[in-house]
Amino acid sequence: MTPTARAEAIVGGNVRLASRLMRDLDDEMPGADETLAALYGHTGRAEIIGITGNPGAGKSTLTDRLITAWRAAGLRVGVVAIDPSSPFTGGAILGDRVRMQQHATDSGVFIRSLATRGLLGGLSRSTRDVVNVLEAMGFERILIETVGVGQDEVDVAHTAHTTVVLTVPGLGDGVQALKAGLLEIADLFVVNKADRPEADQVIRGLKLLLELEGGQRHGWTVPISPCVATDGTGLDTVVKLIDDHLAFLKTTGLFETRQRSRRRAELLDRVFVSLRREAEARVRAQGGAEALVDALLARTLDPATAARRLLDLDVRGDV
Amino acid sequence: MTPTARAEAIVGGNVRLASRLMRDLDDEMPGADETLAALYGHTGRAEIIGITGNPGAGKSTLTDRLITAWRAAGLRVGVVAIDPSSPFTGGAILGDRVRMQQHATDSGVFIRSLATRGLLGGLSRSTRDVVNVLEAMGFERILIETVGVGQDEVDVAHTAHTTVVLTVPGLGDGVQALKAGLLEIADLFVVNKADRPEADQVIRGLKLLLELEGGQRHGWTVPISPCVATDGTGLDTVVKLIDDHLAFLKTTGLFETRQRSRRRAELLDRVFVSLRREAEARVRAQGGAEALVDALLARTLDPATAARRLLDLDVRGDV
Repeated sequence: MTPTARAEAIVGGNVRLASRLMRDLDDEMPGADETLAALYGHTGRAEIIGITGNPGAGKSTLTDRLITAWRAAGLRVGVVAIDPSSPFTGGAILGDRVRMQQHATDSGVFIRSLATRGLLGGLSRSTRDVVNVLEAMGFERILIETVGVGQDEVDVAHTAHTTVVLTVPGLGDGVQALKAGLLEIADLFVVNKADRPEADQVIRGLKLLLELEGGQRHGWTVPISPCVATDGTGLDTVVKLIDDHLAFLKTTGLFETRQRSRRRAELLDRVFVSLRREAEARVRAQGGAEALVDALLARTLDPATAARRLLDLDVRGDV
Repeated sequence: MTPTARAEAIVGGNVRLASRLMRDLDDEMPGADETLAALYGHTGRAEIIGITGNPGAGKSTLTDRLITAWRAAGLRVGVVAIDPSSPFTGGAILGDRVRMQQHATDSGVFIRSLATRGLLGGLSRSTRDVVNVLEAMGFERILIETVGVGQDEVDVAHTAHTTVVLTVPGLGDGVQALKAGLLEIADLFVVNKADRPEADQVIRGLKLLLELEGGQRHGWTVPISPCVATDGTGLDTVVKLIDDHLAFLKTTGLFETRQRSRRRAELLDRVFVSLRREAEARVRAQGGAEALVDALLARTLDPATAARRLLDLDVRGDV
């Protein structure tokens, strides 16, 4: 099957081929990039929502609720769920995904779990790839669920049009959000488990932090929305605020601005991955550059000089 | 002042110059890399302990307690505390550091806070730089405190000889540690706030997970140590287990193995940073590659092709 034929089948609704393409892209199989390139003309159409927050904040439960709400509104929903990879298993732990089994038989929902990858900084790249495939498949809302601590996750949030930061009482007050750099990426704060007594304190803390920052982002006032994801309390408001933010982006032209940053980041990612691959190939060609590591251990070379030697290798031909 | 003279002054105990070098390395000031290179012969001498865990687990309190214990044992202690950067302030939030003021007047303690950096994946690089400077300054124990979620933090843990994973009841059971990939990097689990009723459940969960994995790492049985960091309960055992692990590494030769991986990672880091800089310089030289981003938005080019064009630019001379 040619890349173009595969791409056409995926756009035409072949879910099995789409799943295989996502796996092939992850594994860097031959032909996968070409198929993605052939799909690319069908991308750029979805509304992308990022949900980020600490482990235990209830991201999967909220994701589940949003899928249900959007399906009820007639929207087709794609989900990219990102779990930090276990170096031991090399894959994501799927525990939380089980809850989403109720959507498994709904052809209007597609859920893809991604593990974070080690060396190639592949989290953002894999996510962007999967989002492109989901867009080409015709999903109208795409939800990216990330752990939300660490630069990778912040990068992923930049792929979304609307970023929801989920927090929960009991992890310290809003200062944790500030520490994790989440204050600046949130278009909407959702305080889950809002029936707990400490919830008010979290809301007050977040309000204060947002006010310190000016409380506004390009004219959008970042709302703080309490909910209890497990029983659905406050979910209608969360759904409405997400719609409001998407509408705000579209009327102000910010939607196009975000689309543009997303594409720029995608390009930079690709360039970096290519260069990184080249570096790794050079290190591998030198048997892991063990002679340079030996010199570092003996402290006869410093890391900056060693790196320069490695990069100059193909010119100079020796260590 | 020449790089060599600066390096000599730092090795000789000039704390002010050492602090300035750390700042200069972070800001990529001219001469900083040369000074680090001149210091490099004095590195590789410290025992490095990583402490990692979720926000709110009590890492700073444990760090504080360990500093006190090691100082009482006559060891000089350096600390690298890493907070995810706020893109808004461009720096780390120093709230937790305030607790450590009691060590501020002790010349046997040096505490450096690092923000995570954006584009250059600089967390691991900055950390390694600071550790090298601290080693050259003669600190015998170096403690790296990280948030412990995300690949960056896992990378940083690989810099340490002994990695302590701190967890706390109330964040779900041990499965969160598994999800975050912490199970594989822990040489010692510390369960903080062990006076809470749910602590037993956490300990049982972790035990089960460790048993599933075999419970051993190169012949070391990973202990699970309960404590209450705020009042010091169980701290003596934590201190002893860290010493035990360091002794184990040295008698088995694993200390050298870890030193070697650390230096290899340091070398790769440097190579990647050079390459990433090159990628960014190429994008910048093309005015942000706006013509290529336009083509991506118009979907007349796909990202892989656009990246190839950008990488070929200096050869082909046009987009």
